[in-house]
Amino acid sequence: MTKEITDYAALRETLAESNPVDIAEALEETQEPTTLKVFRMLPKDLAAEVFSYLPPDLQQQIVEAVTDKEMKSIIDEMFLDDAVDFIEEMPANVVKRVLAGASKEKRDLINSFLKYPDGSAGSIMTVEYVSLRPHYTVKEAFDRIRSTGVNKETIYTCYVTDPAKQLIGTVSVKDLLLASYEDLVGDIMDTNIISATTSEDKETLANEFAKYDLLAMPVVDHENRLVGIVTVDDAFEVQQDEATEDFSIMAAVSPSETPYLRTGVIQLTRNRVLWLMLLMLTATITGAIISSFEEALAVLPALVAFIPMLMDTGGNAGSQSSTLVIRGMALEEIELGDVLLVLWKEFRIALLCGTALSAVNFVRVMITNGRNVVLAGTVSISLFITVIISKSVGCMLPMGAKRLGLDPAVMASPVITTIVDACTLLVYLSLCKGFLGI
Amino acid sequence: MTKEITDYAALRETLAESNPVDIAEALEETQEPTTLKVFRMLPKDLAAEVFSYLPPDLQQQIVEAVTDKEMKSIIDEMFLDDAVDFIEEMPANVVKRVLAGASKEKRDLINSFLKYPDGSAGSIMTVEYVSLRPHYTVKEAFDRIRSTGVNKETIYTCYVTDPAKQLIGTVSVKDLLLASYEDLVGDIMDTNIISATTSEDKETLANEFAKYDLLAMPVVDHENRLVGIVTVDDAFEVQQDEATEDFSIMAAVSPSETPYLRTGVIQLTRNRVLWLMLLMLTATITGAIISSFEEALAVLPALVAFIPMLMDTGGNAGSQSSTLVIRGMALEEIELGDVLLVLWKEFRIALLCGTALSAVNFVRVMITNGRNVVLAGTVSISLFITVIISKSVGCMLPMGAKRLGLDPAVMASPVITTIVDACTLLVYLSLCKGFLGI
Repeated sequence: MTKEITDYAALRETLAESNPVDIAEALEETQEPTTLKVFRMLPKDLAAEVFSYLPPDLQQQIVEAVTDKEMKSIIDEMFLDDAVDFIEEMPANVVKRVLAGASKEKRDLINSFLKYPDGSAGSIMTVEYVSLRPHYTVKEAFDRIRSTGVNKETIYTCYVTDPAKQLIGTVSVKDLLLASYEDLVGDIMDTNIISATTSEDKETLANEFAKYDLLAMPVVDHENRLVGIVTVDDAFEVQQDEATEDFSIMAAVSPSETPYLRTGVIQLTRNRVLWLMLLMLTATITGAIISSFEEALAVLPALVAFIPMLMDTGGNAGSQSSTLVIRGMALEEIELGDVLLVLWKEFRIALLCGTALSAVNFVRVMITNGRNVVLAGTVSISLFITVIISKSVGCMLPMGAKRLGLDPAVMASPVITTIVDACTLLVYLSLCKGFLGI
Repeated sequence: MTKEITDYAALRETLAESNPVDIAEALEETQEPTTLKVFRMLPKDLAAEVFSYLPPDLQQQIVEAVTDKEMKSIIDEMFLDDAVDFIEEMPANVVKRVLAGASKEKRDLINSFLKYPDGSAGSIMTVEYVSLRPHYTVKEAFDRIRSTGVNKETIYTCYVTDPAKQLIGTVSVKDLLLASYEDLVGDIMDTNIISATTSEDKETLANEFAKYDLLAMPVVDHENRLVGIVTVDDAFEVQQDEATEDFSIMAAVSPSETPYLRTGVIQLTRNRVLWLMLLMLTATITGAIISSFEEALAVLPALVAFIPMLMDTGGNAGSQSSTLVIRGMALEEIELGDVLLVLWKEFRIALLCGTALSAVNFVRVMITNGRNVVLAGTVSISLFITVIISKSVGCMLPMGAKRLGLDPAVMASPVITTIVDACTLLVYLSLCKGFLGI
């Protein structure tokens, strides 16, 4: 008995000194009822932080086990952005209970933040920032930071607002530290503000963070009133999540927010099978094209042997172009207005690649197919045309998708390959018919 | 004349208040000799910062135009990590001149930093950090930050070292601000340090930043002596660059560090054509497989019509698995030790996907090919086996590549497709021969 208590005391001490991320990771490995027991040992502020790092299923489990009072303390201690993220993942009955328990102020804030559309700057911002007034002295600014800073998500950039809450400047703690105590905030603040509006795309915002090396960015409403900030860790996460999402979509997988090993087989199958089905059924077109040339192929079945090579090369050439364009658009290095520039570039690349590939292919077919110049020529010309078509289609379709308001990433390898396959077969079989007289 | 001088004065004032990133972007758009003229108008510290944001070709142009004295001032004002990045991109004669101009201390530091292998934490760290001693009071700590902080890349996390330069703790400016002036740094510092060694992979380091929401991370040598820090903006950039690199490699394009629109057609072609050539030549195998079944295909040319569908579905099924595994490994959510877990998961997904696809395909072939049960059955069984093979190959090859010390991203769609194609054809044509007796 005594031993157990000692253990608990030691554990409590260890926990209090540990990193919340590590505690959350450890909790994921434990089983009920240990999970709840350990969680309850955490000091109040640490508990809220650890809670915000837990996966939704574990969050729900804890919410359902703790008392209303404990829940209120967790939600009131959580940063607003984390609280909003958590609530978005919970089922309706849990949300109701959590909101009922929160302080009125917190509840109103959460409700207003839940209204920002998913993917907007508003949906990832938080309200725990330090705001200053331009007539404050540096000393007064420090006093304010000292008195309110402990609950702020960042204190390193402070935001200067006028009485109408309009954002008029920013001042970093570094600037404050290097100024003298009597200087006025209004005199040392930076008025060259990089800000976002609540409705701005969060991916654009993450790109701005990377471009300007920011630690935090203020978010204003449409009257330029400061309503929140986004911190670099959230921008970093957006960037990482968007890249992961693009990787998934580009491989014809519906994106999932949970890591691979934590996602069940049924869910993973569901994310993939419809795409495979859709693409498989579209391949009916290629089948129909081949069928319509069936007689020609019966005359010279050797022609079939080149189909996989032509299709694969076309698919690869197209995917190269589409991938680079999709990524360039995600990083905002390529804009919709660059469409002719991109097309002209890809066209010249296609000419060069097509020429090189056709030449090598010509030699290869001559060697493997008994110096049949007409055959080698037909396959090589088909290959050349395929590369030109693939690269043009590959660069245009993602831009077209964006123009239509779709995610450019859907126009990646699988879709491009399916489209390019049909073009390739049509070109190849038509040329065979013409040149080889079959 | 007077007007021109007024303009310059106004321009200088505007520049001094602008963001260095925006100035760098504007300079990229100007022509010589304006570029140099504008650059020379910048205040010394701003000039160094703008310089570090310029692309290498423009950096070289400026270095070749300025005097030795100007060069010395730029290089001495630059943060060490930016100086090292810049020097790594310059041709030997420029490097020689730049290093000859730098102060001895800076030169020695640059030379020692150039030795860290590309891709290591050492290669992206910098030395401009604030170090404190445990016996300092909070007041002394602030004095030190005030006196040295202006040239530091970050002051928000300070590093506490012992006389042997070993890292013993970190303290944030927030902690210092919330402590009282008489507190000792040693008492309030955080001893639970998340650090990296100089040889650690920079991708791992970036993942740690994301995991722990860090603003900076200390880098220690193998005796735990503090040698530098990495700031969050650099970790953010690593994460973005690595994702871009993976996108490129996964589309069979050699990665390029310059953005798409700033890369020439020749360079873009060079990045792509060898991969296409290699994959095209590997397709000789699929050609050979088809040729060896030529007689069978001559008997029933309708069989050819299903080849593109089978190849594409196999390629897509395999790419889905390989992409998710590659991305999971990049984010370190999947480790090499998880190999059996992943294989077992993919096998079950393949069973489910394969069953669904085969069933739908059976019905489709029955409809389009005159209720030929044997044909529909043969195609569907081939499809089922193809999906199983593709998903197994798709998840295993990236892990195998990693095991061999290669970048898992090479085992993405194009390579998987080529391998899966050969398997698909072998399975399909063998089954045709067996079941259809041709």
